[in-house]
Order: sequence, then C-alpha cells, then structure tokens
Amino acid sequence: MKIEHILPADIERRSMEIIEEELGEICLPPMEKDVIKRVIHTSADFEYARTLRFSDAAVERGLAALRQGCTIVTDTNMACTGISQAALDKLGCRKVCFMADADVAAEAKAKGTTRAAACMDKACRLEGPVIIAVGNAPTALIRLHELMEQGKIRPELVIAVPVGFVNVVYAKELIMAGRAPYIAAKGRKGGSNIAAAICNALLYKLTRDA
Amino acid sequence: MKIEHILPADIERRSMEIIEEELGEICLPPMEKDVIKRVIHTSADFEYARTLRFSDAAVERGLAALRQGCTIVTDTNMACTGISQAALDKLGCRKVCFMADADVAAEAKAKGTTRAAACMDKACRLEGPVIIAVGNAPTALIRLHELMEQGKIRPELVIAVPVGFVNVVYAKELIMAGRAPYIAAKGRKGGSNIAAAICNALLYKLTRDA
Repeated sequence: MKIEHILPADIERRSMEIIEEELGEICLPPMEKDVIKRVIHTSADFEYARTLRFSDAAVERGLAALRQGCTIVTDTNMACTGISQAALDKLGCRKVCFMADADVAAEAKAKGTTRAAACMDKACRLEGPVIIAVGNAPTALIRLHELMEQGKIRPELVIAVPVGFVNVVYAKELIMAGRAPYIAAKGRKGGSNIAAAICNALLYKLTRDA
Repeated sequence: MKIEHILPADIERRSMEIIEEELGEICLPPMEKDVIKRVIHTSADFEYARTLRFSDAAVERGLAALRQGCTIVTDTNMACTGISQAALDKLGCRKVCFMADADVAAEAKAKGTTRAAACMDKACRLEGPVIIAVGNAPTALIRLHELMEQGKIRPELVIAVPVGFVNVVYAKELIMAGRAPYIAAKGRKGGSNIAAAICNALLYKLTRDA
C-alpha cells in the first residue's frame, strides 16, 4: 500500500472521480447524482446509490428554497455543525438546531415525547421557507408528519435520513408516502453526517458551480 | 410497516438489543464489543463488526486516559460536537478541534499542507494526556504518524477512522503498523460520526456503568 501524492486542493476532485468510476454505468439524473456522490464521499458507502430516494423535483425544490434564503432545521447539533456556514452566508440562508434549547427540553418532558419531536413543534414558529433535515431521530419525522397533516408546517424539502433500529424505516416510509418533497435514505442507514452531506450537496450546486 | 410503541428513554436500550441479536454468535471481547455496538448504533452498518480493529488493550488505554482527565483532539468540528459534553464534564476531560483556528490555517498555507495536518502539530503543544480522534482527514493521521516517530507527541490512544478514497486506507495502515495504541476502521469507511461514537462508547463505560 503506497501513498498517492496529491495536492490538498485536489483531494476532493480525485475522490469524486473514483466514486464516478466505481458507480460505473448506473444511470442517475445529474441533479440527483451530485447528491448521491456527495453522500458516498462522506460515507464511502455505495449502498446509498440504491437507497437514496427523491420525490419529483426534490433537488430543484431544495435549490429554490436556498435561493430564497431559507432556514435549514436539523435534529442534531452534529448535523448543524456539518453544514457549510460559508455557503449559507453566500446565499443569505441560516441553519438552526433546537435540541439544546431549554423550552424544547421542557416541552418534551411535559408531553412525554423526545426533544427531537419537540424541535419540530418549535420549527412551526419559524418565518420564511424551511428545509427540515433529520439525520438522527425518527420521532422527529413522525411528529413532522403529524404537523404537516395538520397544516402547521409546510417545508420546502424534507431530508429524511435518520439512522437506526427502532421506527427508523417506518418514519422514512411515512415521509415517502406523504405530500412534501423529500430526499430519503430507504432502510436503516443514514445519520447526521448524511443529512449534512445532502445539505452541502445542494448548497455547493449554488455556490461552487457559479 | 407498523410503528413500535416505545418510551423515548427505552429506544437506545431496544436498539442495542436488536444489534446484539443480529450480531449473533460473533465472539467479541466485552470491552471491544461495547465500542463496536455503539458504532453500529450510529451507522446501522454491521460491516464495522469485521473492520474495527483494536491494538492490545486499546480500550483500557483509552479508559485510563479518560480517568486521568485527558483532552480529546478531533479533526472536525462535527466529531467534536458529537462527543458527549456531559460525560466529559463528569470525568474532568475536555474536547478540542483546531480546524477553525487562524494559526492553523496560516501554518497549513505556509507549509502547503492541509489544516487537518497542521492541527496535529498544534496538538503537540497540549499539556497532559491526549486522545487523538480522526474521522475525516487521512493527512491528519499521516502527519500524526510523523510526529509520533519524531517523539513530539505520544497519544494515549489514536482513534483512526477517517473516511474516503484518497490515502485513507494507507493512513490507517500506517497507524495500525505503528506503536501507539489504536482503534481503527480498516478500509475506506469511517467518519466524524464514527469517531464521536467511539469516544462516546469509552466515555459511557465510565459514566453510565458506574
């Protein structure tokens, strides 16, 4: 095993070339392909080429929201940290995570639910267009689905990629059967890193390709 | 697909039961098994049961460092964010990430290296025992290896789980062939979430089992 000599600035480009090569002949629409490639870049897991699902024009809806200066709401501080602040700044967008907020903890305790679910209630009070990115808690998606059904929130895009073993598959299928535009990872896999990577794939389309 | 009704506090316990069941008869030492299970919990990827590698007594070395109030150095803010602050506080430990520091950016530029590599140079100046947790940049591991060879840093434990396609496998093999205690993910897979999960698995052994 030898080292590959490469300039720091070229590492990402080279990585994407390798991913492209290994994806081979899989036919993916270009808008979605960039998202899939970035998720594989962040996970080294080619399974996402099969499991990432997009509702019609989901990527376009996400890009339109970012062009309008939307708020991205995440269900973990880790996902929030992973989203490019520089790219958000260029577009006049912002990212928020309510998980550490005292009012969210109090509401979750009072209702016997999770803090992640209570975050979705808090997201209903945001002004302007919203993208919801869930990389951890299926309870957030289940509550989001209820709130959408009740007409209390209408996200421009739902990024539904929680990871895990309890109600994760169920929660993602709920979102995929719903009316909101979504990007979802079918099955158990996902994570805060995947949620952040999808957000960054969309952000970079608007800030790097220009 | 139906919902599984479960109290928020029981979700993690139930997830670990499912992981335990699906791991089946795989014979793993208990100290290492808890780390492997938490990595699978965070990724839903059972491949880590095969690919996570531990040097002799690596877990014990990590626990000893945490008991001494060590500093955990990460190569991404995302990994840093994912490490339990509450558990660190209980043990008098701390976590740091130098990636956003101006002096690190300046040094990387001057030397034509990555900021992640420059972070390892900065870590040499820390006082007290150190755990290095790399979830992203192979260049950090390669520089760390050089610094260890030069006797400039002697980490209590190296968590070597960068993800990706360029020099990632090489960098991990370098660490696995070295003298420092390590926990590494053989192959391309890993990530900031994996680095944080390994740190948390160690932290929870000392703060939850008590």
